[in-house]
Amino acid sequence: MEQKHTISVLVENHAGVLSRVAGLFSRRGFNIDSLAVGETRNPEISRITIVVNGDDYTVDQVSKQLNKLVDVIKIKILVDNEFVGRELLLLKVKASAKQRAEIIQLVDIFRANIVDVSKDTITVEISADQDKIKAITGLLEPFGILETVRTGLVAIQRGVECVE
Amino acid sequence: MEQKHTISVLVENHAGVLSRVAGLFSRRGFNIDSLAVGETRNPEISRITIVVNGDDYTVDQVSKQLNKLVDVIKIKILVDNEFVGRELLLLKVKASAKQRAEIIQLVDIFRANIVDVSKDTITVEISADQDKIKAITGLLEPFGILETVRTGLVAIQRGVECVE
Repeated sequence: MEQKHTISVLVENHAGVLSRVAGLFSRRGFNIDSLAVGETRNPEISRITIVVNGDDYTVDQVSKQLNKLVDVIKIKILVDNEFVGRELLLLKVKASAKQRAEIIQLVDIFRANIVDVSKDTITVEISADQDKIKAITGLLEPFGILETVRTGLVAIQRGVECVE
Repeated sequence: MEQKHTISVLVENHAGVLSRVAGLFSRRGFNIDSLAVGETRNPEISRITIVVNGDDYTVDQVSKQLNKLVDVIKIKILVDNEFVGRELLLLKVKASAKQRAEIIQLVDIFRANIVDVSKDTITVEISADQDKIKAITGLLEPFGILETVRTGLVAIQRGVECVE
C-alpha cells in the first residue's frame, strides 16, 4: 500500500552527496514529496529528512541502496506517532489597512508570527505540522495569498531515543 | 570575495529535478550550505531555497546554468536585508525533573515551543534567523544536547515583491 514515509539520513557533508541521494530516489521512480537538509552540531555531518510516497517494500529497498552510498552514515525510517514532524511556512498575503486586524487575529489564534508588514501586505511565519499549515493557508486564502515558501518536513523522534 | 548567497528557484515538480539542480552545484565545486524544498500552492511547482558560498561572478554563472535546466521556471538571487530568512530547529536536550524549570525559562525567552517531554528529555522547536538558532543552541548546550534537526534556510522577499 502506498503511503508517506519519513526517512532521516545522516550524511558526510561532501559536495555531491545531496545530488547522489536525490538521484537514487529519482532513478527508482520515487518523487520526493519534501526534502530538507541542515547541518548537525558537527559541521562535517548533515542530516537529510526525506518524505516519499511508496509501499513498505520499495522504501525498504531504497533504504538498503542508500546504505551503500559511501557518504551515508546512518538511516532511520521514522514510525508514525513516534516522531514530532514540523514544517516552516513563510506566507505573504494581501492586506489593506482595513484587513490588518482580522489577519492579525488569525495569526494569533494559530500562534504564528508576523515577520514583515508593508502598505499592502503582511508576511507571516508559522512552524507547525502539515495539517495546521494547510488550515492557516486556507483561512488566509480569501485575502489573496501572493507567495508561500515552505521548508519541507523535519522530524525528531519522541522520547529519549535519537538517530544521531 | 566569497560570501553567502541565498537563491530562490521555482521548478517543475518532476522526479529528478532536485538531483539535477544539486548536481549542477556540486559539479561546479560549490558545497551547498543548506537546501530546502517545499511545495508551492501549485502542487506541480516546488520551490528550492539554496544557500551557497561563492563570489558574485561564480554565483551568477551557476544561476545562468540553472536557467538552462528544462525544469527550472524562475531563479532569483535574494539581496541581503531585502528578505526575511528563517530556519526551523528541533532540538532534544537532557532534562532531569530538577532542570526542567530552567530549560522552560530559556524556551520562553526565545519564544520557542516545547513539543515533547520525557522523563529525561525535553524537545524544543524554534523558528528563527540563524543567529538566534545559534544562541539558543549555545545556551542549551550545557544541559547536554542529544540531537538537533534543522530545515535549512527559507527566505521570502520583504514588501510586496514576489518571486512566484
